[in-house]
Amino acid sequence: MLVAEIGEEALLKELRNLFAATARSVPVGIGDDAAVVEGAAGLQAVWTTDLFLEGVHFESGWQAPGQLGRKCLAVNLSDIAAMGAEPRYALFSLACPGDTDAGNIIDVARGLNDLAAETGVAVIGGDISESREGLLLSVAAGGLVPAGKAVLRSGARAGDAILVTGYLGNAAGGLTLRRKDIESEYRSLRDAFLSPVPRLAEALLAREAGATAMTDLSDGLASDLRHICVESGMGAEIYHERLPVHPELLEASSEYGWDLDNLVLAGGEDYGLLFTMPAGAADAAALAIEGQTGTSVAVIGEIKAGKAMTVVCEYGRLADLPEHGFDHFLPHG
Amino acid sequence: MLVAEIGEEALLKELRNLFAATARSVPVGIGDDAAVVEGAAGLQAVWTTDLFLEGVHFESGWQAPGQLGRKCLAVNLSDIAAMGAEPRYALFSLACPGDTDAGNIIDVARGLNDLAAETGVAVIGGDISESREGLLLSVAAGGLVPAGKAVLRSGARAGDAILVTGYLGNAAGGLTLRRKDIESEYRSLRDAFLSPVPRLAEALLAREAGATAMTDLSDGLASDLRHICVESGMGAEIYHERLPVHPELLEASSEYGWDLDNLVLAGGEDYGLLFTMPAGAADAAALAIEGQTGTSVAVIGEIKAGKAMTVVCEYGRLADLPEHGFDHFLPHG
Repeated sequence: MLVAEIGEEALLKELRNLFAATARSVPVGIGDDAAVVEGAAGLQAVWTTDLFLEGVHFESGWQAPGQLGRKCLAVNLSDIAAMGAEPRYALFSLACPGDTDAGNIIDVARGLNDLAAETGVAVIGGDISESREGLLLSVAAGGLVPAGKAVLRSGARAGDAILVTGYLGNAAGGLTLRRKDIESEYRSLRDAFLSPVPRLAEALLAREAGATAMTDLSDGLASDLRHICVESGMGAEIYHERLPVHPELLEASSEYGWDLDNLVLAGGEDYGLLFTMPAGAADAAALAIEGQTGTSVAVIGEIKAGKAMTVVCEYGRLADLPEHGFDHFLPHG
Repeated sequence: MLVAEIGEEALLKELRNLFAATARSVPVGIGDDAAVVEGAAGLQAVWTTDLFLEGVHFESGWQAPGQLGRKCLAVNLSDIAAMGAEPRYALFSLACPGDTDAGNIIDVARGLNDLAAETGVAVIGGDISESREGLLLSVAAGGLVPAGKAVLRSGARAGDAILVTGYLGNAAGGLTLRRKDIESEYRSLRDAFLSPVPRLAEALLAREAGATAMTDLSDGLASDLRHICVESGMGAEIYHERLPVHPELLEASSEYGWDLDNLVLAGGEDYGLLFTMPAGAADAAALAIEGQTGTSVAVIGEIKAGKAMTVVCEYGRLADLPEHGFDHFLPHG
């Protein structure tokens, strides 16, 4: 049945029922003018928001509706994790043309709700509207962190080690396959792009291990590391041979003639964590996080005094890190 | 200069600077993965969100960009107020085509920021993206309320008086003028539609005076009162002659042949408050709120046991309240 046949009121009721279970943990969830959540002494709240637009961030044929719903929550939870916080709340808004299949919309919401349920997140509100063209999703997420313990981008110090979780460039590889409409066997690349996993447990462990700065890998290593360097007033050296490259990305790059370095250094949407910590504790922390979560952690470089961001290999300086990852408005290179 | 010429990074920086003053009150505002706000013992947080889409909620020629920014925050603050809470935080996302004038976008943000500054709201985050078509705004707002004191829709009891602030139908009158492209002298109607004022002080006074249920007038009296009645398991009787109709709406309806009752009972977007309270205290509370804020408050009816919602005049039952206000997807009557 089409959204225009069901109507806003009925669709809202459907979604409200869907989200009822996760919202049971808050005093007032969906259905009033606003949601009410508990205040808490000793904790601070952390909030972020992301837009997710058809034709810009995704195309409708690229994934199942449930994957889409899951991803638009996942990228917000990834931001909460990157603060060293635990996600707790989500607001979920969507707009679509009236001739959209209502089942599709409910499947999007169901995917989002599944991830919410798995991560202890309550979907506490949202909005629904007609759009003139395309599906539009807007998610805001809130979390909690012990007061004063949020891990900011600004805390990196000279000599700190630079660490990343997971692999670099896989999502960019998956996006390239989608854009070129290649049906391939490179499942790690496809999944990295369509089904990113927010690194919640890894982020809390990094915070507890003494991470000095942290962000998530949304725009690509070069951009995201630049954010940390600029906010911290520091530079960085990246060890080329330590960058974690997945065997499938290596293979696909060779098969299709991709620029592997560009994917690894500037490819966005991996949604791993990028963090810094005192060098002496880095290897032990990497091992501990790997051991407890199963997620690989690599020490990939060092924070340096100054402003230069360079990539080095065993023979010396290789290149400056590219200035930009993905910019929504600038022409794409 | 066009948004595509400035680029996302520069536009973000511009907006970050613009919002810097309001965000000074929070531990971490715009610029990290997420914002950090203070937790608080004895308080609960209240969150809401609204989409605002060109071609659906507004047309670009209808208002100055600053009015648009102000309105998309105002409607969220109105929801916070309707909970009996004080607004404190806002997240502001926007998407537009690359060929949008960047000055326009900054003016939208400036309008939003002005209202934020006037109301003590910190703009703590947001997102910015390209859109394929039209301007898209998404705002989430958070506020604080003493624990357990939020005024829900579900608290109305039989015998409670029903009160509204301000006038009914003015915004619908203003919308009708805009849609028909009538340049008129009916300034109260135009302003009600383009520049709604969230009733923040009025809402706190209503809560303190013992409001049992409250919502804001976004969908029109019939719909919004139905929300209170359904959530409270009650019915209602509305006194036709007590409905607050502005002289300009009366005059415009007569001049253009509008259905005045329909505008007053079902016209949306007035963003006044609709609340209930014990009948014995209603007149005094209405006077007190009027005296302290200058906003008129009218007692317009009574909550009744049962489910019927009727409009009565001095000669008896006039009509059932219409079932629907505005529905985004159902055909408009």
